[in-house]
Amino acid sequence: MLNTLSLPTIVIYMKKQLLIIISCMTIHVIAHAQNADSLMLRALFNETMSHSGAYENLRVLCKEIGPRLSGSANAEKAVQTTYEMMKRAGADTVYKQPCMVPRWERGSKESGFVMLHDGSKRMLKLCALGNAVSTSKKGLHAEVVEVRSFGQLDSIGAIGISGKIVFFNFPMNPNYLHTFRAYGESGVSRWNGPSQAARYGAVGAMVRSLSSNTDAYPHTGVLGYNDSFPKIPAIAISTMDAEWLSTQISNHHIKDVWFKTSCTMLSDAPSFNVIGEIRGTEHPEEIITIGGHLDSWDLGEGAHDDGAGCMQTIEMLRSFKALHLNPKRTIRFVMYMNEENGGRGGDAYLAGAKKNNENHLFAIESDAGGFSPRGFSLSVSPQQYAAVQSWLPLLAPYEIDRISQGGSGSDIENLSEIGAALAGLRPDSQRYFDVHHAATDVFESVSKRELDLGSFAMAALVYLVDRHGL
Amino acid sequence: MLNTLSLPTIVIYMKKQLLIIISCMTIHVIAHAQNADSLMLRALFNETMSHSGAYENLRVLCKEIGPRLSGSANAEKAVQTTYEMMKRAGADTVYKQPCMVPRWERGSKESGFVMLHDGSKRMLKLCALGNAVSTSKKGLHAEVVEVRSFGQLDSIGAIGISGKIVFFNFPMNPNYLHTFRAYGESGVSRWNGPSQAARYGAVGAMVRSLSSNTDAYPHTGVLGYNDSFPKIPAIAISTMDAEWLSTQISNHHIKDVWFKTSCTMLSDAPSFNVIGEIRGTEHPEEIITIGGHLDSWDLGEGAHDDGAGCMQTIEMLRSFKALHLNPKRTIRFVMYMNEENGGRGGDAYLAGAKKNNENHLFAIESDAGGFSPRGFSLSVSPQQYAAVQSWLPLLAPYEIDRISQGGSGSDIENLSEIGAALAGLRPDSQRYFDVHHAATDVFESVSKRELDLGSFAMAALVYLVDRHGL
Repeated sequence: MLNTLSLPTIVIYMKKQLLIIISCMTIHVIAHAQNADSLMLRALFNETMSHSGAYENLRVLCKEIGPRLSGSANAEKAVQTTYEMMKRAGADTVYKQPCMVPRWERGSKESGFVMLHDGSKRMLKLCALGNAVSTSKKGLHAEVVEVRSFGQLDSIGAIGISGKIVFFNFPMNPNYLHTFRAYGESGVSRWNGPSQAARYGAVGAMVRSLSSNTDAYPHTGVLGYNDSFPKIPAIAISTMDAEWLSTQISNHHIKDVWFKTSCTMLSDAPSFNVIGEIRGTEHPEEIITIGGHLDSWDLGEGAHDDGAGCMQTIEMLRSFKALHLNPKRTIRFVMYMNEENGGRGGDAYLAGAKKNNENHLFAIESDAGGFSPRGFSLSVSPQQYAAVQSWLPLLAPYEIDRISQGGSGSDIENLSEIGAALAGLRPDSQRYFDVHHAATDVFESVSKRELDLGSFAMAALVYLVDRHGL
Repeated sequence: MLNTLSLPTIVIYMKKQLLIIISCMTIHVIAHAQNADSLMLRALFNETMSHSGAYENLRVLCKEIGPRLSGSANAEKAVQTTYEMMKRAGADTVYKQPCMVPRWERGSKESGFVMLHDGSKRMLKLCALGNAVSTSKKGLHAEVVEVRSFGQLDSIGAIGISGKIVFFNFPMNPNYLHTFRAYGESGVSRWNGPSQAARYGAVGAMVRSLSSNTDAYPHTGVLGYNDSFPKIPAIAISTMDAEWLSTQISNHHIKDVWFKTSCTMLSDAPSFNVIGEIRGTEHPEEIITIGGHLDSWDLGEGAHDDGAGCMQTIEMLRSFKALHLNPKRTIRFVMYMNEENGGRGGDAYLAGAKKNNENHLFAIESDAGGFSPRGFSLSVSPQQYAAVQSWLPLLAPYEIDRISQGGSGSDIENLSEIGAALAGLRPDSQRYFDVHHAATDVFESVSKRELDLGSFAMAALVYLVDRHGL
């Protein structure tokens, strides 16, 4: 063919050939590196799946300690227990990083009921929202107004709201594949609802629990008061009660509502992040952070939220040590305090990093439950995103190769200030809001294999970042 | 540029342009069709996630009926109840297809213990294996030999085995991502172990339960006696007991074992597959079959295995009807009887298809649990595989786009005889063997959203097969 072609065509042809040769060489080099990585990931996988201690550690955290709201005696026990676990897992150093935490207590007197026009009464499954103020000792008694959007609240306005309890009935949209999207959309009712109701003179707020299903459990969680408006008592009611109440309101059967809470915000208390380290062999000054949060809500055992993330973090440390996998960079294994109602642990970690002028390359958090992992969310530059994409063939055999841009974890997102690339472990989200912030978030709701797979997923990504940089 | 190129180059260039134009046109047509499909899949998704009846139907099947071993009164209740469910879901026709089923009964007298040399005794958590013969009324009392492979059994041989109970300790390999692979490998201990032991004169077989984890429950399941050897009593023991026993045997602490079972194989009983149909509008003679199996083991409620598959099947029927989605081909919704210990329902379905000279295009079964779906296994021709691959962009938004060649479902695999393309729904498998064939396979172990997603996944694939053929 060549002899029939003109010179420019020949040049193009030769360039192409050269490109093919260079491509082949590059592929060869990449293939070689990827093969070594592939073998190491397989070793990490087998080590984790065969010898993980995460499930037994989680049992101890959930069953021997239990709920661990910031500032509580249990939270301090959890600090001590996980400090010891981190040591046993083989960290080069383990230390506690001090932070002051808000100390909100639920108290023991929560109850409420609905009065119907026919004189009958229905008790509610309820709980105070985290950080809320309490009612007076005799409780709060008022008519109730249901709203399904903030637009509706605004259009009812002060005339319809003043002196009443606002019932925010924002169901989680079942038509989103990822339940976190529905949580984000409906969660505004809990975060902003109470103050938005207070703005129009409401005396209390009742929020439909943020649960994917219709169940009998109230799901708590933090609210955010807006200082411009009065702080009013606020509770979550179970989705089952919310469904019932909504129907009764439509049928004009409801006279009024009474509820009482006994929560208090005490003065800040000293607490700690628990941090373990493996010191880097080549670039000890470059830091990779992996973690979860140690505090939990008080209604369950904080098994998925976020005992799972903590125990996966410790397990990754154990598996690296078991395989004598000495990282080039320093890896920090961090259990943050106070993610649920203040974020002070994350703040303290950033402050420490700034104070010591640390070089943070990458941080990842597991705070979306100990479910079967699917991949990672990334908050990284386009170049870094492309680098992670080039590793997907290594992650695909473990079915953890779904990546998306945006989102990491609330304890680490502030590390973007000092230039860290960020990631979040993304497990299957279907069951998370069945148990989230409720009495059902217990050890028994966690699967050993799913928990271990999540630990491996983080270990795999951290291994690749450590080895190849980002 | 053109004026500097030679004629052949110009021809090549023009051919390329033409190719690009044709490609663009093809892409346009495909994009148009895919957009219509994409909208329909979204409608199916929303319909299922917002209005599915699968979870409530599963509650009825599990809680109001319960375990439904072939030939039992419960199995017949399940036939009647699901027949009514299928009618309510809106099938054009619903009918019962007769089949004779084996009737194995466990009886009420199962127990056993291990005697140690120090005179102490440990009770075992055990159950007879399905279709096994029973011990005599006074039970079976013998020394025990542990084996970890058939090779080891062979090398011990008759001298070491004769007159003894063989303990098959084949743990499921935790290092496989997909638990079904481990089940396949270790499952030979249950299927073939008893007869292989009998071959060397063993008087009984104890099999380590096929559970992914170390738990306290015996997991039953069918064995397959080889008619060349004596039929010996066979039980499963919990993985916890298996671990303990293995350690004690290593330490030479075990004197002998006693166990008793009271199971019986009665004469065959009449039963049914339950079948609903939506008749095709364009090619009613071409049949697409979707299904699960109605019978279950007797220890739990058969929630994941396979109440889930049945209720997903009925839900798909409901969603098609709710959306007035009139298929071109005839769709059969089949709940097979007797998958667990005979496969007679599947046999009857094939026999019916042959007798009526039916044209079976495609069949899919959901019999791997009601967990979050990941994709499909396919037993199809390379051309058909390519067709399914071309649909993956439509399935990807729902994260059900992992396909693999090989495997469908045990009730439908015989349909390959009459040329049907086959598929199996492939949910996440991590938790399946936690509950499989054990007392823990109950309604509470199923997540509503995961169940509904599985139903949608099958509906999506069936919709595409119906619309585009295969």
